[in-house]
Amino acid sequence: MKHKRLCEEGFGEKGNYTIILPIDQGVEHGPVDAFYATDHPEMLDIDYQVDYIAELLHEGLVGATALPKRTANLLCKKYPHLAQDVILKLNHGNNLNKKLEPSQAIYASSRHASNMGGVGFTIYPGSSKQDEMIDYFGKIQEHKPDNVKSILWSYPRGGDFYKTTLKTIMHAAYMAAQLEPDVIKVKMPTNNDDVTNIVKAACGIPVVFSGGRFSGTQHMVLYAERIAKAGGYGMIVGRNVFQREPDKAKNLLRDIHNIFRET
Amino acid sequence: MKHKRLCEEGFGEKGNYTIILPIDQGVEHGPVDAFYATDHPEMLDIDYQVDYIAELLHEGLVGATALPKRTANLLCKKYPHLAQDVILKLNHGNNLNKKLEPSQAIYASSRHASNMGGVGFTIYPGSSKQDEMIDYFGKIQEHKPDNVKSILWSYPRGGDFYKTTLKTIMHAAYMAAQLEPDVIKVKMPTNNDDVTNIVKAACGIPVVFSGGRFSGTQHMVLYAERIAKAGGYGMIVGRNVFQREPDKAKNLLRDIHNIFRET
Amino acid sequence: MKHKRLCEEGFGEKGNYTIILPIDQGVEHGPVDAFYATDHPEMLDIDYQVDYIAELLHEGLVGATALPKRTANLLCKKYPHLAQDVILKLNHGNNLNKKLEPSQAIYASSRHASNMGGVGFTIYPGSSKQDEMIDYFGKIQEHKPDNVKSILWSYPRGGDFYKTTLKTIMHAAYMAAQLEPDVIKVKMPTNNDDVTNIVKAACGIPVVFSGGRFSGTQHMVLYAERIAKAGGYGMIVGRNVFQREPDKAKNLLRDIHNIFRET
Amino acid sequence: MKHKRLCEEGFGEKGNYTIILPIDQGVEHGPVDAFYATDHPEMLDIDYQVDYIAELLHEGLVGATALPKRTANLLCKKYPHLAQDVILKLNHGNNLNKKLEPSQAIYASSRHASNMGGVGFTIYPGSSKQDEMIDYFGKIQEHKPDNVKSILWSYPRGGDFYKTTLKTIMHAAYMAAQLEPDVIKVKMPTNNDDVTNIVKAACGIPVVFSGGRFSGTQHMVLYAERIAKAGGYGMIVGRNVFQREPDKAKNLLRDIHNIFRET
Amino acid sequence: MKHKRLCEEGFGEKGNYTIILPIDQGVEHGPVDAFYATDHPEMLDIDYQVDYIAELLHEGLVGATALPKRTANLLCKKYPHLAQDVILKLNHGNNLNKKLEPSQAIYASSRHASNMGGVGFTIYPGSSKQDEMIDYFGKIQEHKPDNVKSILWSYPRGGDFYKTTLKTIMHAAYMAAQLEPDVIKVKMPTNNDDVTNIVKAACGIPVVFSGGRFSGTQHMVLYAERIAKAGGYGMIVGRNVFQREPDKAKNLLRDIHNIFRET
Repeated sequence: MKHKRLCEEGFGEKGNYTIILPIDQGVEHGPVDAFYATDHPEMLDIDYQVDYIAELLHEGLVGATALPKRTANLLCKKYPHLAQDVILKLNHGNNLNKKLEPSQAIYASSRHASNMGGVGFTIYPGSSKQDEMIDYFGKIQEHKPDNVKSILWSYPRGGDFYKTTLKTIMHAAYMAAQLEPDVIKVKMPTNNDDVTNIVKAACGIPVVFSGGRFSGTQHMVLYAERIAKAGGYGMIVGRNVFQREPDKAKNLLRDIHNIFRET
Repeated sequence: MKHKRLCEEGFGEKGNYTIILPIDQGVEHGPVDAFYATDHPEMLDIDYQVDYIAELLHEGLVGATALPKRTANLLCKKYPHLAQDVILKLNHGNNLNKKLEPSQAIYASSRHASNMGGVGFTIYPGSSKQDEMIDYFGKIQEHKPDNVKSILWSYPRGGDFYKTTLKTIMHAAYMAAQLEPDVIKVKMPTNNDDVTNIVKAACGIPVVFSGGRFSGTQHMVLYAERIAKAGGYGMIVGRNVFQREPDKAKNLLRDIHNIFRET
Repeated sequence: MKHKRLCEEGFGEKGNYTIILPIDQGVEHGPVDAFYATDHPEMLDIDYQVDYIAELLHEGLVGATALPKRTANLLCKKYPHLAQDVILKLNHGNNLNKKLEPSQAIYASSRHASNMGGVGFTIYPGSSKQDEMIDYFGKIQEHKPDNVKSILWSYPRGGDFYKTTLKTIMHAAYMAAQLEPDVIKVKMPTNNDDVTNIVKAACGIPVVFSGGRFSGTQHMVLYAERIAKAGGYGMIVGRNVFQREPDKAKNLLRDIHNIFRET
Repeated sequence: MKHKRLCEEGFGEKGNYTIILPIDQGVEHGPVDAFYATDHPEMLDIDYQVDYIAELLHEGLVGATALPKRTANLLCKKYPHLAQDVILKLNHGNNLNKKLEPSQAIYASSRHASNMGGVGFTIYPGSSKQDEMIDYFGKIQEHKPDNVKSILWSYPRGGDFYKTTLKTIMHAAYMAAQLEPDVIKVKMPTNNDDVTNIVKAACGIPVVFSGGRFSGTQHMVLYAERIAKAGGYGMIVGRNVFQREPDKAKNLLRDIHNIFRET
Repeated sequence: MKHKRLCEEGFGEKGNYTIILPIDQGVEHGPVDAFYATDHPEMLDIDYQVDYIAELLHEGLVGATALPKRTANLLCKKYPHLAQDVILKLNHGNNLNKKLEPSQAIYASSRHASNMGGVGFTIYPGSSKQDEMIDYFGKIQEHKPDNVKSILWSYPRGGDFYKTTLKTIMHAAYMAAQLEPDVIKVKMPTNNDDVTNIVKAACGIPVVFSGGRFSGTQHMVLYAERIAKAGGYGMIVGRNVFQREPDKAKNLLRDIHNIFRET
């Protein structure tokens, strides 16, 4: 398969794949857990962070980056030629108060992404907020500029159902697909399941899988193999990249690229 | 009676009937329970699914199909001449979290159906969301293009009243009728009741009855007889069609047509 | 007093009165309890029902009829010259789930009544929904065409206060009056109270009293006498008319007219 | 001090004062407790009531009157030259169901007051509805005609804090002041406190104090003295006026005027 | 570092700092606790208060002042040349009812600040109202005039998490930063932590720290040193200024200026 950036021709087509770098854990888990208390604490410095993201994009190690508003704007200002690689993440949750219903607040609108490559949005199928999140995404689809792609995070949340079974993720992928984003992002099932059916459940819309928590290279490589073999369109690798020391992160990305390229 | 497609002249008039194929269980029950874990697992593949729906329409075995947005758009893209047979289902529930209040999220707006034959919408009489669902349907009626028909699913939900008695279904049908959709869809009562009064409760608006869960051919044939005899306008048969092997499904549809034709 | 139709000159003035036929119990109690399981089951048939309403209007036995949207539209279509006698009831509750907060859903907007004589709306003083119901009625008053009259049902609901004392009904009538509808509808107090003060509480706006549940002719006649004597503007008689056999219903209406005429 | 009507030049300025007659207890407590079961039951008759209000205005005993919509409109229709003395009260609570959260429904909009002297609105600092009430008042201020004055009732409600201490009333007055109405209305503290600091807490906006429940003349005169001495701008006296026999009410008003005049 | 007023060129740039005087505790804690029961009770008098704020601005002891609407308007009216130093605080909470969810009501809109220097707004990360507060700030940013700066108070509230740890404040600062206000205001951590990382968490947006409750001069000086050393942009000192006797307050401000100037 060939690596394609988000806004490159052929993106989303069979035979291609992409690796996306999301840096939204700063809002969700806070900058200490996301950046400072990791193997790569320099990321707490936003100037360093922006340069580092640009470096990974320049080296072709990732094909897009999903960022909250401030980070996205700083990157686009300093590296205007990379704006088309930026996915502006419009909503974010946070883990400050675990007693709250799972939800995400709106931090930006699709208008703010008019010069960027895409917008990202999360829905929580199964949560008490699912109806309004689904409804809101419909409005984003309607109002965003045509040339801005939409990437839909679909994470089952709420209730006590088991959230990361193959079956539940397929359900979330199918719901997301019926909303017709340009790309669907789902989690990997916790069991060692074949994810082919998740790809099928997405009804022809490219699916990228999240890399999940920081884990060993070996684990990530196995993930990539399962995804590539199953027809997944690629990976969204965040913490496994930006919480690693740069050399190790780049090596991991190269390993993942190799797996997709050879599939 | 004569079979009429949704947008054919004479649709909805006495002496005619229709069979509608809904495929919205993928959103509601998930693609595993709806498609993969059935006698017809190929349906998980959206390309196969779209071709199969087209085949049933081409062969005149169904007169319309009610679909979620992505499926509807794929069908209309590949088979543009069938667009007038498509009912875009605008809202969907899901069974991911059974502790949530019965509700349905908005997946599409009537604008997305401007080139299709109709829009479908569900209300849950008796649920705590009934007021806003009823209100929303009023807005759909007001804003949809005139040539797009509206089909209203009216399912009593919520509370501990017995939801599928003849009396409750009549109540739901009457409420739906006062909202003046083009077609009303209700469930069959669980007892073996004569459904003539459900048809009467619909105040002259054509009523189609749902086929319900996957069941034996014999059962479905008896259903069809009860409906035809009572003046029902036809059936919405989903799981009993798409969860059967194609040959058996087509035979079942032919049996149902025979019953309505001979009435 | 002289009987005046809703849209006749002199309607609402002293020395006149009116009898209104509401048929909204089909939505509220369902078509079985409202029509089918009564002494007049033919009413379940909407064609019969529409003809029967027209007959009572033609014979001058009622001066207006309050109907849900479908029934209203069918009547206006078949008997266009009676459209000015129709009050389109805009909101309705239902008794499907008795655990829900007392509320009413919007089934129609005042725009749908542009060619009719009036719109009807219900508020529930004392319920947790009272604020939004009152607010909504304000919007109806603002947006309805000037020649369309407004009739406001004001029924204390919710909490454990005794809902049909003279004092509570006076409170509901006064609240309704301050919203300035063209006509106020209230219930009769359950005690045998003089209702003169309810009429006073309405601040000069004509008050019509509901006939309540199906009851004996004698009872209805006593009701009518209490109302006429107290300066009430008339009665809204629904179930006591349409749940009776036609001959008996007409006789009852004639008795009521006689009482008002002779007052 | 000199008595000034609401719309007279010099209203609100130091050295002047005003007495306002509010008749909104009909909505809040019902017409029985407000009018009928008092020493002045004739007030239940709206024609009598309107004439009586006009009489008090004509005799200069009150400088404005705060009324619900129907009463206000009847007064303005019969006595158009008094319209500039009318404050249209826009929202009202009621005591029908004491289990409801303290709240007030919107009965009228500032547009309805375009030919009157002012609009009145209530906020409940400390209640769970305070945010939306405060927000709503902001919208009134923005949309009302410039020549229509705004009078803001600010009553601490909700929770179990002691609602009529000097400190709590000062807090409510300060919150009201920051919303910049033309006049603030607060309650008297239940203790015999000096109310100078309430006047100060209003940040230069004229404060009128409510007369409270029906009480003896002696009590009212002491109230007036405390208010006048403290720099209060006047009183809003409702029940103590309209629930008294006319002669006694007028004498009470004269006593109050004397106190303010002599201060 | 050099002191810069809010609207002076160079404000927000490295090498500069600012001291802001907020007087919003009158709304939050009431005028008794905020003004009257302090060492500086004259502040209860709004005329005195406005003159005193102007004096501190004239003497260059503070570079901006954050005020509720009435206070802001009085200051701008009496001292129009100081309008560009005023930050209109748009929302306020209050402590009247401690059982309510932490929230803030809207007292003013950014339109009211069109001739002032800035608008202030508070979000409560971690509270059940956080989503709508964040959403509302997005709308402020969109609609405010370009030349009006935005200052975002970001205070973790709600739940039982420890609200003033370094880590939690960093999280709140990071969330605020992603909303891109012109200035972020956070609290000081209760431990004696180095606040450098809070400044970093703000992603390049100037951070000012609140002075907190009334405390000894020594304590405030230590605060200022920690902030200045860590790259903080300055302090928002309210109660420690306006609850002190003027001479002592001015001395404290001079001490704080000295610390920042010498850093």
